[in-house]
Amino acid sequence: MSSYTPEALRECHSKIQPYIHKTPVLTSHLLNERTGATLFFKCENFQRGGSYKMRGATHATLLKKEEGHLPGVVTHSSGNFAQALSLAAQSLNIPAYIVMPKNAPGVKKRAVDQYGGSVFECEPTLEAREAEAERIGKETGAIFIHPSNDPMVMLGQGTAALELLEEVETLDHIVVPVGGGGLLGGTALATAFFGGPCEAIGAEPLAVDDAYRSLQAGRIMGNESTDTIADGLKTVLGSYTFPVIQQYVRTILRVTEGEIIQAMHLIWERMKIVVEPSSAVALAAVFKDPVRFKGKRVGIVISGGNVDLANLPFT
Amino acid sequence: MSSYTPEALRECHSKIQPYIHKTPVLTSHLLNERTGATLFFKCENFQRGGSYKMRGATHATLLKKEEGHLPGVVTHSSGNFAQALSLAAQSLNIPAYIVMPKNAPGVKKRAVDQYGGSVFECEPTLEAREAEAERIGKETGAIFIHPSNDPMVMLGQGTAALELLEEVETLDHIVVPVGGGGLLGGTALATAFFGGPCEAIGAEPLAVDDAYRSLQAGRIMGNESTDTIADGLKTVLGSYTFPVIQQYVRTILRVTEGEIIQAMHLIWERMKIVVEPSSAVALAAVFKDPVRFKGKRVGIVISGGNVDLANLPFT
Repeated sequence: MSSYTPEALRECHSKIQPYIHKTPVLTSHLLNERTGATLFFKCENFQRGGSYKMRGATHATLLKKEEGHLPGVVTHSSGNFAQALSLAAQSLNIPAYIVMPKNAPGVKKRAVDQYGGSVFECEPTLEAREAEAERIGKETGAIFIHPSNDPMVMLGQGTAALELLEEVETLDHIVVPVGGGGLLGGTALATAFFGGPCEAIGAEPLAVDDAYRSLQAGRIMGNESTDTIADGLKTVLGSYTFPVIQQYVRTILRVTEGEIIQAMHLIWERMKIVVEPSSAVALAAVFKDPVRFKGKRVGIVISGGNVDLANLPFT
Repeated sequence: MSSYTPEALRECHSKIQPYIHKTPVLTSHLLNERTGATLFFKCENFQRGGSYKMRGATHATLLKKEEGHLPGVVTHSSGNFAQALSLAAQSLNIPAYIVMPKNAPGVKKRAVDQYGGSVFECEPTLEAREAEAERIGKETGAIFIHPSNDPMVMLGQGTAALELLEEVETLDHIVVPVGGGGLLGGTALATAFFGGPCEAIGAEPLAVDDAYRSLQAGRIMGNESTDTIADGLKTVLGSYTFPVIQQYVRTILRVTEGEIIQAMHLIWERMKIVVEPSSAVALAAVFKDPVRFKGKRVGIVISGGNVDLANLPFT
């Protein structure tokens, strides 16, 4: 884990800065009142590509490019990382090959296409995705970049918390959603390096609480089903993200689907911003544990804003 | 019209500043590309109460309070002004009486209640609304404040454009939606006083194009029906707003319902902000007249973000 240093995180940030937005930090009187905490929302829904994933995708691609000729990057993702890697590669004039399951929504494929990535369809199994990504790598020379389980991706994701810590004085906690662990791992590093007593906390749907159980068990656990509205959080921790989270994170809070939707509705209605369900998981966690957060200054990373507007959970 | 001076607008702004948010100005690469213009969105959806109406409501209430003992303010509105006047009065420790038609949505009544206003229901006719407001005024001593047709309200609404002109250099146009004309009138004054060659332009649904026809006819025209999704724009110009608009505004652009929904969808999807249909009318107008706006620097006032999330027009 020698690559995880304060200097490495700073260098990562200065490298990716030309390619990313410095996203705003928003506040809400009403949500402060309702939670009893003072909340600072780091709005990565306003990030290029619509999510924080742009940070890690850019960092990993930049470093690979610095190593020498880079014929392309390849990943398998049907979510925000697909768009992020396409956009990052486009900014760096490198082809991006995105492997997606056949049954992924057309809107996701079009988004990749719009950002200059090439979509390759495969059967909707992990095996088929990995095989197709490997084939493309062999054929084109493109380097595989994992959506979360990659130290350079994780460092990149940590720059959102770094910016938040630079902008807002003395936070007690930073709460972020946890899926593959790239954001939580990066946030934990940023917090450990630059947050003083500030503590990184993970927020997870009860329906896919693999990170919570992994921390308890001391090894990476899976999920028996992935039935959650927070579609960005269905993945599990990996060989790089788990050790970092194990070292730095004490607390993972779990919330129900109803709590996620309620928090999402509050954010849309009161803050007037479009956020995806995965982002609302962090606010839902703050509501879930009022004793822990009462009177505290709490950062929340709004992870993204890519939703299907024709298919919202509000009734 | 002697109260419309640059000094009066500045004084209005400094008076209301403690009670309002200075809202952010957002930009969008994608919307710049799509329109061929450089767009600056003044986000009054982030204003207190969820719309620019807070500015005028605060200004009018403040001035009435300065004149002496103010037992209350009263208005009839089922829209954003109802919430704005409630919140403005609450900030100034004054009772607000809001007359609403019986059939107004419950969510609107609850919002007024939440901001400390008292709802009075009446039959859904203009006569009944006016009669009830008059009765309340006589009984309580509350002063009637009109949602748009009031010089002090209009000046207050103009402070959004004033802030935009202060923040963004050399705008060619500022486009705002027009209903009762408070926002367009105020914007026209701010632009005339502080915008140099910048021109205020109104944007209106074709379905309620009374402002367009009023400018053509040289007198205030009504609408035969008010069947538009832009529920904030169903009202018509008044005795105070029309002369200002007649003096300062040359152009009112009209858009279809489909164009409004399309522009609204683009703003939500690409800018990740929640805006109401009336706000989208201004962007739709920029799309409607590409020749006029190509290569220009264009301010757009996003008028508000109060929508029923369970009832969106996206399919």
